[in-house]
Amino acid sequence: MGGAGPRLHAIIPAGGAGTRLWPLSRRARPKFLLDLTGRGRSLLQSTVDRLRPLCASITIVTGTAYRDAVAEQVPEVGRDIPGRIVAEPSGRDSMAAIGLGAYLVRHAHGEDAIVGSFAADHAIERPDLLADAVRRAMVAAERGYVATVGITPDRPATGFGYIAPGEEIAPGVRAVTHFVEKPDAETAARYLAQGYCWNAGIFVVSTGTLARRLRELQPGIDSGLRAVVDAWEGPDHDAVAHAAWPTITRIPIDRAIAEPVAARGGVAVAPADPAIGWSDVGDFAALADLGAPSSSAVCVDAKGATVLGEDDGRVIAIVGIDDAVVVRTPDAILVTRREASQSVRDVGEALVRAGYARLR
Amino acid sequence: MGGAGPRLHAIIPAGGAGTRLWPLSRRARPKFLLDLTGRGRSLLQSTVDRLRPLCASITIVTGTAYRDAVAEQVPEVGRDIPGRIVAEPSGRDSMAAIGLGAYLVRHAHGEDAIVGSFAADHAIERPDLLADAVRRAMVAAERGYVATVGITPDRPATGFGYIAPGEEIAPGVRAVTHFVEKPDAETAARYLAQGYCWNAGIFVVSTGTLARRLRELQPGIDSGLRAVVDAWEGPDHDAVAHAAWPTITRIPIDRAIAEPVAARGGVAVAPADPAIGWSDVGDFAALADLGAPSSSAVCVDAKGATVLGEDDGRVIAIVGIDDAVVVRTPDAILVTRREASQSVRDVGEALVRAGYARLR
Repeated sequence: MGGAGPRLHAIIPAGGAGTRLWPLSRRARPKFLLDLTGRGRSLLQSTVDRLRPLCASITIVTGTAYRDAVAEQVPEVGRDIPGRIVAEPSGRDSMAAIGLGAYLVRHAHGEDAIVGSFAADHAIERPDLLADAVRRAMVAAERGYVATVGITPDRPATGFGYIAPGEEIAPGVRAVTHFVEKPDAETAARYLAQGYCWNAGIFVVSTGTLARRLRELQPGIDSGLRAVVDAWEGPDHDAVAHAAWPTITRIPIDRAIAEPVAARGGVAVAPADPAIGWSDVGDFAALADLGAPSSSAVCVDAKGATVLGEDDGRVIAIVGIDDAVVVRTPDAILVTRREASQSVRDVGEALVRAGYARLR
Repeated sequence: MGGAGPRLHAIIPAGGAGTRLWPLSRRARPKFLLDLTGRGRSLLQSTVDRLRPLCASITIVTGTAYRDAVAEQVPEVGRDIPGRIVAEPSGRDSMAAIGLGAYLVRHAHGEDAIVGSFAADHAIERPDLLADAVRRAMVAAERGYVATVGITPDRPATGFGYIAPGEEIAPGVRAVTHFVEKPDAETAARYLAQGYCWNAGIFVVSTGTLARRLRELQPGIDSGLRAVVDAWEGPDHDAVAHAAWPTITRIPIDRAIAEPVAARGGVAVAPADPAIGWSDVGDFAALADLGAPSSSAVCVDAKGATVLGEDDGRVIAIVGIDDAVVVRTPDAILVTRREASQSVRDVGEALVRAGYARLR
């Protein structure tokens, strides 16, 4: 990217099950492996597709349980595309996963290499506008910032964290005054009016800056990652991984790095063009908005029905429920409403209580 | 029944499709042929079972399309039980159907025979309490009244017509001042407080009284029925039926006889004991109240779910919808809420519009 060609090293943490998309997503078949948008590529494959032209390498950090499925879906990573598929010994939240990828890049490419983290299970309609924002974020990263790509909200969503922008520090890049967690509806409306961005978890930072910030803020994570990465290619890999990995604090990257560094004036945001068409594909309401392939339903006194999943040939009739969501799979049927989509995450626990743990 | 043994001749009009119970009921598989209560007998079979000990004969009046299925379900009618299964040339509402049965009974048993009409698709928990009320109604019928069995309401239902009782004319029998159509909720509450009964369509009357009232109020129906019944067993049956039947006015028995005769002081009601456990099995709310066999659902933020139909082994999860009703059949799935149950009747039309007329 830029005049000197691509120097961005992408890190794709691929670990979340996507419990709000049950019964499409399951523990053994997590969201990022699914073709939820019906375009013939899984969310992970689409993520690799859109990062490939932007990046010098791609590192996917996933769980041991998903490693084979990931390798099968994106065999080009580590073959046609420089990079690798890395399995965490166990899930320890996003700071550990992204940190592992970043420290591996640092080990291979040095302190000036710039890494960018990109969720494996989001959707973006306009990769060119992602590239544009990432390019601006890289300018800030080169100047020592922890940079992030912000999504310009089109509604007062309560399901995302927000980024509060401050003064401009470069063309199309602003300092971040602070990060805020998922707000209530009233607060979200205020954020929208004040020009806040959604936090999509896209962080762009040089490996040197990241390591320096971790040493300062989370020295245990820094030393744990260094131990694991130093032994990564050697004969002691397994022993070190098993000893050091479990000591790494479980913490999201937002809390470990982004929030405290923002408080110190070290975070920048490059707001993406509003036309980027970003979605976290977080629940069935988001999936319906994305225009996922919906079977038709026969509706009586029922507006806005969404029928997803495998069409088994049975006609679905919906009577007297607006914004109904019906999702069919061979072993389960979900019935909900768009506004209850977030609560689908609790189905897993209810399944366990009902003796259907195998269906999670 | 009574000292002289059973002299009641039951007439069971069996014609209604039960469109509010789609997809369990279909045009080709109407409600009365279904075992909706899960007790191993269809609603029609249960109706025959409970009338058999009370009646000297049973006449089932059904449509030509259902005649074979009815004969298969209740082969005892006309064999072990005196009576017969009669197919109307076409459906012409309840006055024609009940009148046909009554005039056939009159032809065979004379003017003093007492007929009682009983819906083919209702459920009654306590047949002994039905028998008790019918016995009281017969006393009134013998005195020339058009008698009815009233159901004592346990709630201000808006889905039934009501009967307004007047002064007692015999032990446990009151004169009827008037009939009222399905009321709104406020009116229903007033009816409940004033001791009104539900109209369950059970009419008990001598064939002589019925014929006299028809001659007086609906002479065209009387002459049409007489023509059809006089030719019934003869060689001209088909010709007469095709000529006379279509001339018979389509009108419910309530409007043709019960309401105008009540205005003339000629209707009596025998209120059934409140413990009778009557249900019209009219919609999925009624079916759920009856304790129809419901599969379990995995529920999150969802109270009072009802899952009916054929268990296909798939787990049903319901999130964020109270009183949801899910009904599964091999070719259709209905999703509704108890309070929208009545609107299920409009699914048939929506199916036609959507190109699924075959699923009605």
